[in-house]
Amino acid sequence: MSEVHVARRALLRERCAANSAQAGHADALLVTRPANIRYLTGRPPEGAALLLGADGTDTLLGPAAADPSHRHTGSRPADELRTVAIQSPDGDTAVAAADLAASAGARSLAVEEHHLTVARYRAVDSVAGLHLARLACPVEAQRVVKDQEEIAALRTAAEITDQALGELLESILVGRTERHLALELERRLIDHGAEGSAFPTSVATGRNSGLAHHRPTDRRVEEGDFLSVRLGARYHGYCCQIGRTFVIGTAPDDWQVELYDLVFAAQRAGREALTPGAACSDVDRATRQVLDGAGHAEALGSATGHGVGLEIGEDPRLSPGAMGKLDACVPVTIEPGVHLPGQGGVRIDDTLVVRPAADGGPELLTITTKELLAL
Amino acid sequence: MSEVHVARRALLRERCAANSAQAGHADALLVTRPANIRYLTGRPPEGAALLLGADGTDTLLGPAAADPSHRHTGSRPADELRTVAIQSPDGDTAVAAADLAASAGARSLAVEEHHLTVARYRAVDSVAGLHLARLACPVEAQRVVKDQEEIAALRTAAEITDQALGELLESILVGRTERHLALELERRLIDHGAEGSAFPTSVATGRNSGLAHHRPTDRRVEEGDFLSVRLGARYHGYCCQIGRTFVIGTAPDDWQVELYDLVFAAQRAGREALTPGAACSDVDRATRQVLDGAGHAEALGSATGHGVGLEIGEDPRLSPGAMGKLDACVPVTIEPGVHLPGQGGVRIDDTLVVRPAADGGPELLTITTKELLAL
Repeated sequence: MSEVHVARRALLRERCAANSAQAGHADALLVTRPANIRYLTGRPPEGAALLLGADGTDTLLGPAAADPSHRHTGSRPADELRTVAIQSPDGDTAVAAADLAASAGARSLAVEEHHLTVARYRAVDSVAGLHLARLACPVEAQRVVKDQEEIAALRTAAEITDQALGELLESILVGRTERHLALELERRLIDHGAEGSAFPTSVATGRNSGLAHHRPTDRRVEEGDFLSVRLGARYHGYCCQIGRTFVIGTAPDDWQVELYDLVFAAQRAGREALTPGAACSDVDRATRQVLDGAGHAEALGSATGHGVGLEIGEDPRLSPGAMGKLDACVPVTIEPGVHLPGQGGVRIDDTLVVRPAADGGPELLTITTKELLAL
Repeated sequence: MSEVHVARRALLRERCAANSAQAGHADALLVTRPANIRYLTGRPPEGAALLLGADGTDTLLGPAAADPSHRHTGSRPADELRTVAIQSPDGDTAVAAADLAASAGARSLAVEEHHLTVARYRAVDSVAGLHLARLACPVEAQRVVKDQEEIAALRTAAEITDQALGELLESILVGRTERHLALELERRLIDHGAEGSAFPTSVATGRNSGLAHHRPTDRRVEEGDFLSVRLGARYHGYCCQIGRTFVIGTAPDDWQVELYDLVFAAQRAGREALTPGAACSDVDRATRQVLDGAGHAEALGSATGHGVGLEIGEDPRLSPGAMGKLDACVPVTIEPGVHLPGQGGVRIDDTLVVRPAADGGPELLTITTKELLAL
């Protein structure tokens, strides 16, 4: 992977040099947002700072590892990334990076103002001889379109997620708590090779069902309940997301079938709107207008989908105010839901990769059935 | 609990009014750090902002809940906390709080520069008619000494943690992977009533044992291994921590006994140094010098313990450079460890509450045995 990371850093330098809006003519760049560091280096980013120096040298400054196996001070591996361990107890890697930049001759340093706290910014700003500029979001922008290796990681993450969910559906659910079902799903993700959960697994039953960010409780699954689940594996750092709703027991009630069909139609409309060149706000509208038409405008949050990758919520955002258009090879979720207070509701979430119609249209990664199963 | 939160907010206002170093004479205070919001309101803090206004009104501004059950716009419950939901898609609750402060007549607003990003700070700073000041860390300082209810929550968290660990010790361990043991511990924490894990459970075997922040791998437990585990329950928001090391199989090797005895002695020295009035750096030194004396100075990280509460790592910090002294009713960890590269190592972590000698000295919350058990 290291060639990939060298190329990503080279592209970032080029873009910032070519477009002063990205880094305000700064001659050195400081990256502190963990997902951005991971994207540009492939290394564990916790507490680290990545300096792209004025002299063309790239340096990753990490907190001194208490674990000696992870120490690489001064080494210069094949990917041309110099690594430095910061030893002082409260050593701020960002300040150390600024010191290094200044001593290597940089006069200005662009920093991620959307990630650095004011306190850290002030500390970096106190480094002598260095003018600070704003590093817009060029790394986030670069992360939007995924390469083949990234999409392969997402495919595996989705496969693991489908397996975990599939196994749960074969087990007895009535009488078990939301909390236990969520834990079991998380265990199964790991069993199938995930590094962990991409986000806290949500399991919602009865009148909790259909809530977007429901935290599992001790409520037990009962006959006649809607059961909505939302989970996703993280694999090689990449996060996917699936959401499904089922009914427990015999046949669903009429209101359940009606609500399910409505959310399903909204979700399908969103999926079908996914094509390179489509405006993000139009994809959102495709999903949203089906629910609006049925009087459920209030039920939706501010977005009906979002990009996924090294973070579970990345650009692009599928919302009414979103700017920009979709490109091919951008993975996104389509995730409408309706919750009726006191009754429950339905959520259906998929992760898909935008593809041109000539390639068969959007690639569905999360393939668990979207039929309304009675379990 | 709501009276408690009203009192905490009143104390914060008093302290800031009495000491200009805390909030620079600002007439309104903005709290954005999630654990601080939870401490002052008892409410879910994600994405929220708490305004203590110049007019004496306290307002919690939260992101508009997609879940209607959580909407409370404009309500004024018994604890005199007004709540406002921010509806706009990308609405920054901090900016909305600043707007509200200005419209209620505040001229200056103290913000948590150690938490706000530069980008959010600039947005808050653009609110007309409002001068920004720095809110030092008065809330963090207020959180250091715990009240009886907080200590009771920590006691329960520790009880749950001891139960989960105790059950694991009764099961067959050889042949199971670090990853599975970690997941099983996390499941047992939930089984016994935890809200979740206070931090990612670490299970380390063989040559991984004794590493401070080891992430569980697929390595299986083998006869003769050291097995070190580190886990903690979160209960009512409060986080505890335990770390233990065992040997697998028959009798430990001589080097294992020797290393264990050494870390045990260091940990005991730290525990015995815990007393109201003791300097934090002295407690650290008590632990550290035992290991230093045996030539393991390098093995320790920058701290040998830390406060616990609504966050797993809070003030005070037990490290060589730490300022300040311990008070009664401050819960801390004592957690030395030594890792020998290629061989493995030992960690022993406890959570204790500082108490005067007249009350029997430090209260040990995590009571699982610290004998070197052969499992």
